[in-house]
Amino acid sequence: MAVDLAPFAGRHCLVTGGLGFIGSNPVLALEAACASVTVVDSLVPRHGGNRRNIAGSAAEVVVADIADASAVARAAASAQYVFNLAGQVSHIDSMEDPIGDLDLNARSQLGFLELLRRVNPEAVVVFGSTRQIYGRPQYIPVDEGHPVNPVDVNGISKYAAEQFHILYANVHELRASALRLTNVYGPRQRLLGDRQGFLPVFLRLALEDQPITVYGTGEQARDCIHVDDVVDALAAAALSPDAPGEVFNLGHESLSLRRIAELVVDAVGSGSVEEIPWPPERARIDIGTYRGDYSKAKQVLGWEPRIDFPAGIASTIEYYRPRLAWYL
Amino acid sequence: MAVDLAPFAGRHCLVTGGLGFIGSNPVLALEAACASVTVVDSLVPRHGGNRRNIAGSAAEVVVADIADASAVARAAASAQYVFNLAGQVSHIDSMEDPIGDLDLNARSQLGFLELLRRVNPEAVVVFGSTRQIYGRPQYIPVDEGHPVNPVDVNGISKYAAEQFHILYANVHELRASALRLTNVYGPRQRLLGDRQGFLPVFLRLALEDQPITVYGTGEQARDCIHVDDVVDALAAAALSPDAPGEVFNLGHESLSLRRIAELVVDAVGSGSVEEIPWPPERARIDIGTYRGDYSKAKQVLGWEPRIDFPAGIASTIEYYRPRLAWYL
Repeated sequence: MAVDLAPFAGRHCLVTGGLGFIGSNPVLALEAACASVTVVDSLVPRHGGNRRNIAGSAAEVVVADIADASAVARAAASAQYVFNLAGQVSHIDSMEDPIGDLDLNARSQLGFLELLRRVNPEAVVVFGSTRQIYGRPQYIPVDEGHPVNPVDVNGISKYAAEQFHILYANVHELRASALRLTNVYGPRQRLLGDRQGFLPVFLRLALEDQPITVYGTGEQARDCIHVDDVVDALAAAALSPDAPGEVFNLGHESLSLRRIAELVVDAVGSGSVEEIPWPPERARIDIGTYRGDYSKAKQVLGWEPRIDFPAGIASTIEYYRPRLAWYL
Repeated sequence: MAVDLAPFAGRHCLVTGGLGFIGSNPVLALEAACASVTVVDSLVPRHGGNRRNIAGSAAEVVVADIADASAVARAAASAQYVFNLAGQVSHIDSMEDPIGDLDLNARSQLGFLELLRRVNPEAVVVFGSTRQIYGRPQYIPVDEGHPVNPVDVNGISKYAAEQFHILYANVHELRASALRLTNVYGPRQRLLGDRQGFLPVFLRLALEDQPITVYGTGEQARDCIHVDDVVDALAAAALSPDAPGEVFNLGHESLSLRRIAELVVDAVGSGSVEEIPWPPERARIDIGTYRGDYSKAKQVLGWEPRIDFPAGIASTIEYYRPRLAWYL
């Protein structure tokens, strides 16, 4: 059963990165629950921000970096809940422009936390972190106590941002928590390029009836989670008095990349799966098989994923088919 | 026995933060071993940079931020060894100016690594990291596999910088390693204020015949290491083919703060020890007792600390007595 969003009715929610994939889905869900929503999104090209993602929404949209106090302070001051989902997720981009990645993912986040501390220390904040910070798993499933070992600039920047949130909870009593997301899929994700991970690439190729390539034999597994399950977790963390100061793994089911590709091809009804040798720049930052242990989120937040991959990918394809041009 | 510095004779060494406490000591040791030394130091007020620290030295001094490519590129391009000791270490400062701390300790370091990668990818780099990144120890002694759990902005920034070094070693083949320093003491440390940790405060108070205050009963232990032992470790890491891509704990002996204060008072021959209640802002970021496990450095680098605290503090006091005005 989905998390009940009724407690957000009439409340002011701020969603950073709210024009992006993971941000726009909670914007729409919160609005459907009669919350008043403000979106802050810097609409950095190629990062996935897309005004069409919240077409028809009454949300106020502020186009700004989250650390831009003059643009963001008013919304930040009045928000009871902050879903902090701004950032860039491309590992390749982070290696090509490391300073840009640190600025966007860590420095702006720290500036945003300073702003919140100043104008709205009572706010509840849920930050979207990533399992990328664990690097190559030392054991499976990976729980929150697993050593941190980021393998790219993005992982280092995101870890810093996550820890800033936990620090501000512990030291400044900001009610901040963090969710470590795995490979999220679902409606409203940019499908062009490879900056948003492998799932949009797989989807696009299948929809275009092209072969999906997997590296090596495609045996390495990923933990795929539908964005609606992420929305549930964001809401559960925001509503839990036990969340502040804590990090929570999300996750669902671990499938090999080859199996994921096959399920996508089956669901779309076109495309194929091909094995290719590992490109060296990918092999260097690959993390092998990942499976997350989300029992802490289950125990503390009462959260569980609800959407199986085959069902989730089928409804995802239904979303994209008539809207493909928006996401390419 | 000290590490043999003869291999540095005739080599060009770049020491960042080389006017500061931990940087100036290797500058002088390397010069004594007939190395050619360039110092880059931004001389940020109150951070401990002091031209008197290398008085009489022939080292070239570049006053600049390490990420200032136009000022630093020439020295960075020709250095065979880079001892990267720039940064600020004040936990309190990092909480009062978090963005400044991130900029100085992480962003500038990332810019410097990008510069090195571009102009001198063959350089050997040893970075000065800190045990502060471990936060409150979950077990004692703390080895390098201990989970990272920084308790202030400084710890988060320094961890990011350390991981950038390891990442650049793993992905870009830069020959970078990192030493996680504990509480370093010895000549050439700024004694004024409390930005450089508790040891300079203890020293100053004893030298001024004032009471040294310890929080609570002063039972929490710290791992104190003499800066000459750090110089040894820097040299050993620079010369070891097994160091790149690795982090190493340094450490020596763990003494209670009360015991350290008593030994300082004994050695100086003035001052006293007093217990005071914990100030709340200190209690919030205190890490309890720390003792490091440095067996990895011993095994891989052949490094061991040589200087006991009583002997080390005695020679330290001999250094400061006639030069106190320089460090206040």
